[in-house]
Amino acid sequence: MNSPRFDVTAIGNAIVDVLARADDSLLVQHKLAKGAMSLIDTETAERLYAVMGPGTEKSGGSAGNTAAVIAALGGRVAYIGKVADDQLGQVFSHDIRAIGVTYDTTPLKGGLPTARSLIFVTPDAQRTMQTYLGATTQLGPEDVNMDYITSSKVVYLEGYLWDQPRAKKAMRDAAVNAHDAGVKVSLTLSDAFCVARFRDEFLELAEKHVDILFANESEILSLYQVDNFDDALQQVRKHCEIAALTRSEKGSVIVNGNEVHIIDAEKGVKVVDTTGAGDAYAGGFLYGYTQGYDLVTCGRLGGLMAAEVISHLGPRPETDLKKLASAVLA
Amino acid sequence: MNSPRFDVTAIGNAIVDVLARADDSLLVQHKLAKGAMSLIDTETAERLYAVMGPGTEKSGGSAGNTAAVIAALGGRVAYIGKVADDQLGQVFSHDIRAIGVTYDTTPLKGGLPTARSLIFVTPDAQRTMQTYLGATTQLGPEDVNMDYITSSKVVYLEGYLWDQPRAKKAMRDAAVNAHDAGVKVSLTLSDAFCVARFRDEFLELAEKHVDILFANESEILSLYQVDNFDDALQQVRKHCEIAALTRSEKGSVIVNGNEVHIIDAEKGVKVVDTTGAGDAYAGGFLYGYTQGYDLVTCGRLGGLMAAEVISHLGPRPETDLKKLASAVLA
Repeated sequence: MNSPRFDVTAIGNAIVDVLARADDSLLVQHKLAKGAMSLIDTETAERLYAVMGPGTEKSGGSAGNTAAVIAALGGRVAYIGKVADDQLGQVFSHDIRAIGVTYDTTPLKGGLPTARSLIFVTPDAQRTMQTYLGATTQLGPEDVNMDYITSSKVVYLEGYLWDQPRAKKAMRDAAVNAHDAGVKVSLTLSDAFCVARFRDEFLELAEKHVDILFANESEILSLYQVDNFDDALQQVRKHCEIAALTRSEKGSVIVNGNEVHIIDAEKGVKVVDTTGAGDAYAGGFLYGYTQGYDLVTCGRLGGLMAAEVISHLGPRPETDLKKLASAVLA
Repeated sequence: MNSPRFDVTAIGNAIVDVLARADDSLLVQHKLAKGAMSLIDTETAERLYAVMGPGTEKSGGSAGNTAAVIAALGGRVAYIGKVADDQLGQVFSHDIRAIGVTYDTTPLKGGLPTARSLIFVTPDAQRTMQTYLGATTQLGPEDVNMDYITSSKVVYLEGYLWDQPRAKKAMRDAAVNAHDAGVKVSLTLSDAFCVARFRDEFLELAEKHVDILFANESEILSLYQVDNFDDALQQVRKHCEIAALTRSEKGSVIVNGNEVHIIDAEKGVKVVDTTGAGDAYAGGFLYGYTQGYDLVTCGRLGGLMAAEVISHLGPRPETDLKKLASAVLA
């Protein structure tokens, strides 16, 4: 058997982020769920953009951010996600290719525009996302290159895609094909509200298809409808081969059957914007995992990547990740 | 006579900046004139974008940046510049309005796209700009709202517009109408290569129409074809009522007839990206000028604004300028 072409193939919503600083009062006034990702329609997008301050546009999308981190670390990554044939689609395509990710999903022509997420960053560095899905809603099974899936070590799926029926079908197909080919399947739960919308499906996936689960504390609590972290921990170890659970300033916990590792967060990080923290963690973790490092090293790499991304505005790395990672990998 | 509606009306190329870090070797390889603004066609734009790293999109444009600073300081500003009816045009329009600038130039429909400048930021924080002018080339006299011009204290013109014949006509019309209405006319020379292209016209303008001239050292040397700063200084004081000459880390020199002020640069600034430094200086200066402050205070405000803008990636302010300015205005 040939060695896999990709370390990771990631599937997600291809989104350009529009980031602006905002006061908490603006969130209250416009009834925005702080810290969450909410889906919005065109009209709401226009209304909210009009009250937003001057913005910074950067490529985002959860799995796209994860793919960018893996590529920047030197991993071989493919990304599958739908943009439109428009200016923001060109921005997204450029940025993900420029960082070294293989990306060739056919852009949507003449229909909905490229997705954007209006991200309000409050003085406490928390991000509140209002996402207009646009072209991403048209991602379907035909966009999933099964050659990429079956020639990867890990397939990484973004929970956010469960909001779209055709993408959901694409994800399930990818997971089944991956397993048939002996490829590990990884899922990020993405958002506590997203988990609440699709709890039963995520539980079934976790039990039947997911080898490596990524979740933060509120997501894993929501998945098992429990109110303390340890209860969730005991549940998830029954379902998934590996679970990497992130806990913000408390670091992360990695579970692999009877093996449990507690990884402290990086110290001395000046937090500017938490957008992409979980995505970067998953990127660091999966890079380590696919290079054959032990789980503690994977967790530390994840924490290091998250620390880099939260130290500046925007969800993707801005420093030399290989140099950064050498501290952990040496 | 009514008091003017605007402190400043600025006319310029409406551009979205695409900023990315780059090594000097990339500039050498692609023969890019370091530190300059070069005009590029569609084909070159595509070729250079393909070799550029992951980018950050931010609204820019020289006079747009100046207008943004004046508005952020609390000044009343109108901006005239041409975008297309496309996504980057929406970004530009949003950002300049969000900071408080009056902006209502009709976007170009169905033709050239919104202008963008590919900005390569090297490790020494210098910026090298490769600008595709797109829709800005269609700015004409019909876009200049003469009511805005004649109801301003100062009209601010961007030298870069001399590259386009119809915009040049628009600028001359604006200057003549401004003077007839007792409105001060201000010009920034924009770029040494731009000065070299239009030296005779700029000299004639400076003599006949410009009350307040902004230039950096290389621009003013190029204008008078002299090789030392003092020679340029003695020339310019014969032509313009006020000249504000910026000299990077040496600060700025302000000349008003026999009055000459030497303003030291802000100390202790960590320079990240010099994009927009001169624009921000002009913004701080003109805010001070239109509020009736003395020239020393205007120069210090200019220096303070430049220091803010060079401390981060991107050409427009990211901190509370009113608070920042209070140190100088108190």
